[in-house]
Amino acid sequence: MGSHAEKSGKMLNIAVAGLGRMGKRHVATLLNRVARARVVAVCSAAPHETEWARGNQDYIDFDIKVYDSYDDMLNHQGLQAVWISTSTDVHASHTIKAVEKGLHVLCEKPLSTDLNEVSAAIAAAESRPDLKVMAGFSRRFDASYRDAYQKVKSNTIGEPYLVRSNTCDLLDETGFFVAYAKRNGGIFVDCTIHDIDLALWFMDSPAPKSCFAVGTLKHHPELAESHDVDNGVGVVEFYGGKIAYFHASRTQAHGHDVCTEISGTQGKVMVNVIPKANNVVVADRTGMRHEVQPEYWQRFEDAFATEAQEFVTAVLDDNKVPVSLETGFLVMKIGRALQESLMTGKVIKFNEQGERIEDI
Amino acid sequence: MGSHAEKSGKMLNIAVAGLGRMGKRHVATLLNRVARARVVAVCSAAPHETEWARGNQDYIDFDIKVYDSYDDMLNHQGLQAVWISTSTDVHASHTIKAVEKGLHVLCEKPLSTDLNEVSAAIAAAESRPDLKVMAGFSRRFDASYRDAYQKVKSNTIGEPYLVRSNTCDLLDETGFFVAYAKRNGGIFVDCTIHDIDLALWFMDSPAPKSCFAVGTLKHHPELAESHDVDNGVGVVEFYGGKIAYFHASRTQAHGHDVCTEISGTQGKVMVNVIPKANNVVVADRTGMRHEVQPEYWQRFEDAFATEAQEFVTAVLDDNKVPVSLETGFLVMKIGRALQESLMTGKVIKFNEQGERIEDI
Amino acid sequence: MGSHAEKSGKMLNIAVAGLGRMGKRHVATLLNRVARARVVAVCSAAPHETEWARGNQDYIDFDIKVYDSYDDMLNHQGLQAVWISTSTDVHASHTIKAVEKGLHVLCEKPLSTDLNEVSAAIAAAESRPDLKVMAGFSRRFDASYRDAYQKVKSNTIGEPYLVRSNTCDLLDETGFFVAYAKRNGGIFVDCTIHDIDLALWFMDSPAPKSCFAVGTLKHHPELAESHDVDNGVGVVEFYGGKIAYFHASRTQAHGHDVCTEISGTQGKVMVNVIPKANNVVVADRTGMRHEVQPEYWQRFEDAFATEAQEFVTAVLDDNKVPVSLETGFLVMKIGRALQESLMTGKVIKFNEQGERIEDI
Amino acid sequence: MGSHAEKSGKMLNIAVAGLGRMGKRHVATLLNRVARARVVAVCSAAPHETEWARGNQDYIDFDIKVYDSYDDMLNHQGLQAVWISTSTDVHASHTIKAVEKGLHVLCEKPLSTDLNEVSAAIAAAESRPDLKVMAGFSRRFDASYRDAYQKVKSNTIGEPYLVRSNTCDLLDETGFFVAYAKRNGGIFVDCTIHDIDLALWFMDSPAPKSCFAVGTLKHHPELAESHDVDNGVGVVEFYGGKIAYFHASRTQAHGHDVCTEISGTQGKVMVNVIPKANNVVVADRTGMRHEVQPEYWQRFEDAFATEAQEFVTAVLDDNKVPVSLETGFLVMKIGRALQESLMTGKVIKFNEQGERIEDI
Repeated sequence: MGSHAEKSGKMLNIAVAGLGRMGKRHVATLLNRVARARVVAVCSAAPHETEWARGNQDYIDFDIKVYDSYDDMLNHQGLQAVWISTSTDVHASHTIKAVEKGLHVLCEKPLSTDLNEVSAAIAAAESRPDLKVMAGFSRRFDASYRDAYQKVKSNTIGEPYLVRSNTCDLLDETGFFVAYAKRNGGIFVDCTIHDIDLALWFMDSPAPKSCFAVGTLKHHPELAESHDVDNGVGVVEFYGGKIAYFHASRTQAHGHDVCTEISGTQGKVMVNVIPKANNVVVADRTGMRHEVQPEYWQRFEDAFATEAQEFVTAVLDDNKVPVSLETGFLVMKIGRALQESLMTGKVIKFNEQGERIEDI
Repeated sequence: MGSHAEKSGKMLNIAVAGLGRMGKRHVATLLNRVARARVVAVCSAAPHETEWARGNQDYIDFDIKVYDSYDDMLNHQGLQAVWISTSTDVHASHTIKAVEKGLHVLCEKPLSTDLNEVSAAIAAAESRPDLKVMAGFSRRFDASYRDAYQKVKSNTIGEPYLVRSNTCDLLDETGFFVAYAKRNGGIFVDCTIHDIDLALWFMDSPAPKSCFAVGTLKHHPELAESHDVDNGVGVVEFYGGKIAYFHASRTQAHGHDVCTEISGTQGKVMVNVIPKANNVVVADRTGMRHEVQPEYWQRFEDAFATEAQEFVTAVLDDNKVPVSLETGFLVMKIGRALQESLMTGKVIKFNEQGERIEDI
Repeated sequence: MGSHAEKSGKMLNIAVAGLGRMGKRHVATLLNRVARARVVAVCSAAPHETEWARGNQDYIDFDIKVYDSYDDMLNHQGLQAVWISTSTDVHASHTIKAVEKGLHVLCEKPLSTDLNEVSAAIAAAESRPDLKVMAGFSRRFDASYRDAYQKVKSNTIGEPYLVRSNTCDLLDETGFFVAYAKRNGGIFVDCTIHDIDLALWFMDSPAPKSCFAVGTLKHHPELAESHDVDNGVGVVEFYGGKIAYFHASRTQAHGHDVCTEISGTQGKVMVNVIPKANNVVVADRTGMRHEVQPEYWQRFEDAFATEAQEFVTAVLDDNKVPVSLETGFLVMKIGRALQESLMTGKVIKFNEQGERIEDI
Repeated sequence: MGSHAEKSGKMLNIAVAGLGRMGKRHVATLLNRVARARVVAVCSAAPHETEWARGNQDYIDFDIKVYDSYDDMLNHQGLQAVWISTSTDVHASHTIKAVEKGLHVLCEKPLSTDLNEVSAAIAAAESRPDLKVMAGFSRRFDASYRDAYQKVKSNTIGEPYLVRSNTCDLLDETGFFVAYAKRNGGIFVDCTIHDIDLALWFMDSPAPKSCFAVGTLKHHPELAESHDVDNGVGVVEFYGGKIAYFHASRTQAHGHDVCTEISGTQGKVMVNVIPKANNVVVADRTGMRHEVQPEYWQRFEDAFATEAQEFVTAVLDDNKVPVSLETGFLVMKIGRALQESLMTGKVIKFNEQGERIEDI
């Protein structure tokens, strides 16, 4: 009877919390890309999402139980792990609850826009070293970023000292983004957080010294109410002569354009400086052109699969998770400093111990 | 108990024949990328391959039965489909046997190097219209080739009339390739067959009029014994003013370089003219550089997954297979004509009915 | 007798002041690329330069008089125009002297590192509206920048609101650069000045609101004495919701890397984001690579020729010069503000009238 | 009096024969790009061309005498050299006449479409070793082709054994091209001749063994009358295991697309595989795109200047000319063999001595 790998106990029973755009994608990723995961449950507080799930043929065929409540889902019999893909404001509390239930957790970034909540979630995770609790910084699982990282670590470019990194989204004219933006903490917290994480990763987490940011509103004036912009440029100076600078945008015409350049004393590694949807080029009266991925999903779909595979493997084989929750703390601190600078026009400064200091 | 999708009958029990380099990859593809496939058996006549499989943890955990004989495997209880990845010389006979057992078949290209065998396999498939029998031309499942095809079909470049297509492999200095080459029918049959298929696909299968090829031996002089070359250039003229030309190589220094250009009366579509392993560029004292995929696997891994998914879906949902066996006949006819021209120095000509004609 | 165009008075007698690296190149440009220019004199205060010139066959054959003193050269009989390519600290005074002698002037950037001197030179030029006095911002004459400008002006990208621009030089290990750097005003004044000019040109000279810069020393610690860095990142916020940001570097491994991206509300124009020395790509065991120009000369040689041609044409045909001296004033003001921010860590702010304001 | 370089005798008095599109460009090149050339005369048998020249301000200012007859022009006092840019059918006779007058000659390609005429011109040149007689294969003066050549000669790619080269022109819908095509000898003689020259140059002039070509008519059916096609593909096998293959087209939508790939045993050098008009890329709703040069002039303008400079220098300094007339003979022989194959459908074969042989 039984089936694939069941007898050996080499399958992980996992649930996905949240059935928004990404939650659905995570279910599909687990079904189609992670041989040793068994999706046993999902939940959403939004009736239209649970209704959709209950009628979905895959969810039926693969016996995925649909819950209306996160708390109820945590009690699903045999559940071992949760992938938290709810809205940012409950990431931390959901993580803490799952840990308290003895479940392994993969939590989407950012852990919270509130540093105290981030600390509480980290503390919860530390209290249960037997559980795997992982932060979902998806870019670290992208094959190109990993290749770039290996090249930097193997000294291809000498000492890395400067990172330029962009997260520029396709203009969303549907209104979806503006509604979403109300609770995301601002462009440097929601968007640039990935770039900050990359900068810290590539330059070995130097301590920030000063943060400065400016921004503008070109397509979404409504964001002014949320104290946000639709294009921002930020600069971070680190102790030790390192620098990172960022451009975040919600208003690109050509697609999702995420690129990173790591400059070192002996060279430079560039990731996706010319974004391409695929290998196709069209030559016609307008010249030569290629398309660009419309969204981060097309750019990072494989990275999400790798992330899920590595989380499942870490649990099943009792390995260290590839990205710990702690990773998110310094990232968020810098993201919030940039957002504050954007709003105040001031340079936000820290001493080498990471404490806020004021200019005299 | 049971599990995923089992109750609904929405899983396909499939076996993989052959455990060479590609057979192993097909097993992994089915396990990791095809949610509705259940690999129930594999077989190989090579003891070191079956021994390897019997010790492999995935094969054990996922209950994959390992057979020493293809015929025995066909009798595996509950088996519904076979993916044939044995050596080319038994592709046709294995296909026929599986069809006779009432099994669905996905057969790797080429179906055979002998046109009579190709015809026999096609006839067998036609005798069982209830079975799905599919030819494995993997490039047709590649996202870039599909995008190019959609662009051509939606008239982006007017009437397509000229195809340039290359299959250029990384030089293999291990001896593996030279051993393999003895039974593959020659460079235009083994390598260019993909390019011929693409040319026919993009130009709506025009009738060939003349075929001419030349070649050279630069790294593998041993191939002379097999009446083959390690670099060949072939030209095919079709009725209706269409042309295809090809470069096949076994000796590239930089990687697996497969590109295709489709010229039409209003433009050109190019696929992979500058091959790239990923999105990474390194800038250093030598300039700027990127890496290239070493093998077709890195280039076409996703295409193989799509191919497997579509085959499984075609069987489960009773859809038409995306690439019929018949597709392989004209492709092979042209491949063999190019190989003959290569060996004789003559132009091989056909009339519009496809019959061989001689120059007067 | 006489010759080319002489009878018609359609040749311009021009002198080049300064015989450093660029002065020599300007002489060659005038000889080889400007049909209607006649180089009649050069000068240098450096004996090894004048000695070199007196022995140069071209200078002999083309009757170029070599002076040891700028003032003496200004009295050369028949002289009509001067191309000032001396060191930055005398650009302004040399311009003023030439104007006082009634000569047309093409003065290399920057006009001065001192804003008062810049003003004095502008005033001198304004006092002689009959003379053509032009600022040498060479990038404005580059075919690619001009094409980008036309595209922006013809509304290809909507309203331009964000400029990223880099001037990154090949690492100079000869010591030449460090010696040169002592009098150049700092990296944002010497290097970024071109990028500031481009940002103002593409965005219609918006008024600066705040300037912030950070930097680091990675290869040339000696620059600390000159209050300078070898890598700097600067951000300028303008009134009207416009932003420019810059990276200047003296330490690139791969070559002279100058790129500019102009983002608009409907698209983006990119100039030289992937720099290439020429059209050649090499594919070998390391992948695929191309070379990068080593210096700005290889990148902008044609732009210097166009600049010279247009200056000569402006004089001969009595046209407006393509880049007026005034252009240099705001550019220098922003360059100096960035340099000051770099040294103080403070944000430098201006009101809409361009007056310096302090944070409260 | 006099002027530039006159006294030293270091200027060359040169005339341009032919005032068609290229003849006018050659005059401009000599005026603007060749410091030591003095254009003293031009000629054309077409009254509208001579009329245009007599009214052109540059021709007036620079004292360029306009002749209605080539023979008269050859008698211009002080004339030292002629750049022959007349129609192909008189290239050879004009070369011979100029040599007989003791003039140096730069003759545009092809020398003739008749091999006997080519031989006669070569013989004339050989009879006057004191004169510089040069064939105008402009691509050999292009900076990228030269860089590629240096790389090949310095063993970057091992032994070169395969050349792919394309000459693909923008579709001309004005009728100019079709009229021009009547006397140009066919697509492989007019267009591919450059590619054949490159193949021979890069592979050290191997002896051709067999030539085969096919073609089609997609936009210019009128060419059938001239026994020509608007797209042709040709293959040349050489003795020694070398191969060249070519695509020539008159019907490109995107611009002038000329590329060359030289494959060697250790790597590949590619020239202009992705043609670009300049360094500009536009990102908008259609993706990312760049423009392509419309004509060979934009692609090779600098090469023509270098060619002119080197011819003038060869004469003035009594150096060997960079490309001898003999170069054109084998090139034309292969071009005509491809054209014959195109028309007859037969493989054209040669023995190692270069004599035509027939298949048995």
